[in-house]
Amino acid sequence: MTSTHKAVRHDVMRARNLAVVLGEIDRSGPLSRAALAERTGLTKTTVSKLVADLIDGGMVVETGAVRGGERGRPGVAVQVHGGRVAALGLEIGIDYLAGCVVDLTRTVRLRRRLPADNRSAPPEEVIARMGGLGDALVREAAGLGLVVVEAELAIPGPIDPGSSLVHYAPNLGWRDVALAELLQVPVPVRVDNEANLAALGELWFGAGAALGNFLHISGEIGIGAGVVVGGRLFRGAHGFAGELGHVVVVPDGDECRCGGRGCLERYAGQDVLLGDAPDLAALTARLAAGDPVASATCRNAGEALGIALTSAVHLLDPDTIVLGGVFGELYPWLSGPVAETMASRLRRFRGAVPELIASKVGPDAAILGAAGSVIMRIIADPAAFLSAAAQPA
Amino acid sequence: MTSTHKAVRHDVMRARNLAVVLGEIDRSGPLSRAALAERTGLTKTTVSKLVADLIDGGMVVETGAVRGGERGRPGVAVQVHGGRVAALGLEIGIDYLAGCVVDLTRTVRLRRRLPADNRSAPPEEVIARMGGLGDALVREAAGLGLVVVEAELAIPGPIDPGSSLVHYAPNLGWRDVALAELLQVPVPVRVDNEANLAALGELWFGAGAALGNFLHISGEIGIGAGVVVGGRLFRGAHGFAGELGHVVVVPDGDECRCGGRGCLERYAGQDVLLGDAPDLAALTARLAAGDPVASATCRNAGEALGIALTSAVHLLDPDTIVLGGVFGELYPWLSGPVAETMASRLRRFRGAVPELIASKVGPDAAILGAAGSVIMRIIADPAAFLSAAAQPA
Repeated sequence: MTSTHKAVRHDVMRARNLAVVLGEIDRSGPLSRAALAERTGLTKTTVSKLVADLIDGGMVVETGAVRGGERGRPGVAVQVHGGRVAALGLEIGIDYLAGCVVDLTRTVRLRRRLPADNRSAPPEEVIARMGGLGDALVREAAGLGLVVVEAELAIPGPIDPGSSLVHYAPNLGWRDVALAELLQVPVPVRVDNEANLAALGELWFGAGAALGNFLHISGEIGIGAGVVVGGRLFRGAHGFAGELGHVVVVPDGDECRCGGRGCLERYAGQDVLLGDAPDLAALTARLAAGDPVASATCRNAGEALGIALTSAVHLLDPDTIVLGGVFGELYPWLSGPVAETMASRLRRFRGAVPELIASKVGPDAAILGAAGSVIMRIIADPAAFLSAAAQPA
Repeated sequence: MTSTHKAVRHDVMRARNLAVVLGEIDRSGPLSRAALAERTGLTKTTVSKLVADLIDGGMVVETGAVRGGERGRPGVAVQVHGGRVAALGLEIGIDYLAGCVVDLTRTVRLRRRLPADNRSAPPEEVIARMGGLGDALVREAAGLGLVVVEAELAIPGPIDPGSSLVHYAPNLGWRDVALAELLQVPVPVRVDNEANLAALGELWFGAGAALGNFLHISGEIGIGAGVVVGGRLFRGAHGFAGELGHVVVVPDGDECRCGGRGCLERYAGQDVLLGDAPDLAALTARLAAGDPVASATCRNAGEALGIALTSAVHLLDPDTIVLGGVFGELYPWLSGPVAETMASRLRRFRGAVPELIASKVGPDAAILGAAGSVIMRIIADPAAFLSAAAQPA
């Protein structure tokens, strides 16, 4: 074996061991170096070297506190460091732009949300504004001593996670938009579907941690769903799974922007729910006051959603259904009709009907899932981010 | 460490190494013992001992042929033995009982299919007849020198693979039937849903091997689907995923046996397709002759199936859709309306519409998937089956 081969093997082994050590600290920290050696099976010398590299990269920090080791001996413990490495989550919504910065301990450090009529503006302009928001967040994070190492962007349309080309986002009116080329932020960016990332946001920051198997519904102007089974996102063959908004509710129904007919979005999307209410606050005020038109609209939308969810439960078999986005905020009025429709159609066949709950993270689900995805990638392969993290903030 | 601990560890390691060696022979055999040692990293002595155990258990056999080893030296090769260990696949259909015996090389050795009106008979009677067929197949297999070590039974209803209680099989009219207690066959039996097993049958014995990502539709009196992604079955949270027959096609439609309304089965199930035709052969004869009533029925069913599949594609994102069961036999008449309906609703949004093909295994898909599941379990853990396999045939 040549020395080049040895060097390659050494790098691969070091990268894997860095991931093992950081993963253990993330799951179970604070831990002493001795405890880490016991848990990972690595020698204390190796652990000390790896921990030193992670400290230099700003990913872990000594607690200073003296704790008992696994064998009862005192030692300095190390834990994940929230003061250096950070992730940027971004979202292009239909009527807003949003972003957040999350540190390596998964604490949300910055959040921004700007109203924006992205349906009326050309894609280049929307993407430029998104880039401006991302750039501002990276600079603001730097002021807090944080180094953003990667970004993830949520968009309201199906996308192959391996690509960054938006084939078609009907609610934005976009077609074949090369996002990655147009978006100017000072860090690498990945792109994923909003509904997928909102489900991951719920999994990591909301109700999902206690659930494991759930369907998260993103009720916005478009309606999407993220399917989480055993704590993992089900994406289908091309990453397009979970397009609940285009499940057929009325076979000969109204034409949809997607090209189909009678899609759920036409009967339960945000535009339908709002009616002539100027915004969501006005709608909830009307609903709270018992306005008959608003109540009937909400009930009809809930029944349509219940029918689409009946089909979704038969195909996807979730344990729990989490109503997110606008649906989460309208939960007090929407959940009754949805649950009744599902129960009347599902109870005899399945015995139990999936439980219906409101999102615990609300409208920020997608940006949290986006930033959280970056954090998961860092924990899974810290070696790939060490040099970026070592840059002066 | 006590000697008991050592013995336990030795057994675990032997079981794992038996699986490694048999798995390698199954994937890449025939292989010499030297080649097996090179591929597995085990010593030649260990490989020889493990191969001897597998030969004693009737799972592998020497080819007799002298082949070049990996380093060019001649040696006797071993391959999977088709002459001893076998699996039993069984199915309780709505209007038939079926079974097959598959040997360890995945060759189908016996197949049986008996017409039966299982809707009219009490469950105990149906299960007793199924047991009789299973028993007869085990005896017949013994006459061929085969030892059936385990069985798997397909049933037309949702079932948790960990249990063997049929909560509700609407097309059989069964409720809370304890299958495993009632079924008398001389080998251990597992139970799974017919549509899941038919998809696995297609994966291992039909079109699926070349696909990897597909939705297999079991068109029978009931309609089910199996979702295969990356060569693995997607089961959902409780094993109930893929119930395509109860996707809502007409929201205010006819009541279904499942308790729902407007389910696909009411518009495209076998009973609807047959109309007043006495059997499938009569129907295909009418369709081939251009009978207008049969043609219109088939077109309407195809459109209903296309609508349900539009919803299924949006939620599950398959690469290919395989029409199986009765739908496979009606493919020449059904595929046009299905494909046109899907294309008109999906093309703009997704760009490409999943390809529609006919099943390559036909009505035996579920029994092949059932027997194949047993074979996969044997290959994955031969140690668990060695003593059963060593019984005299």
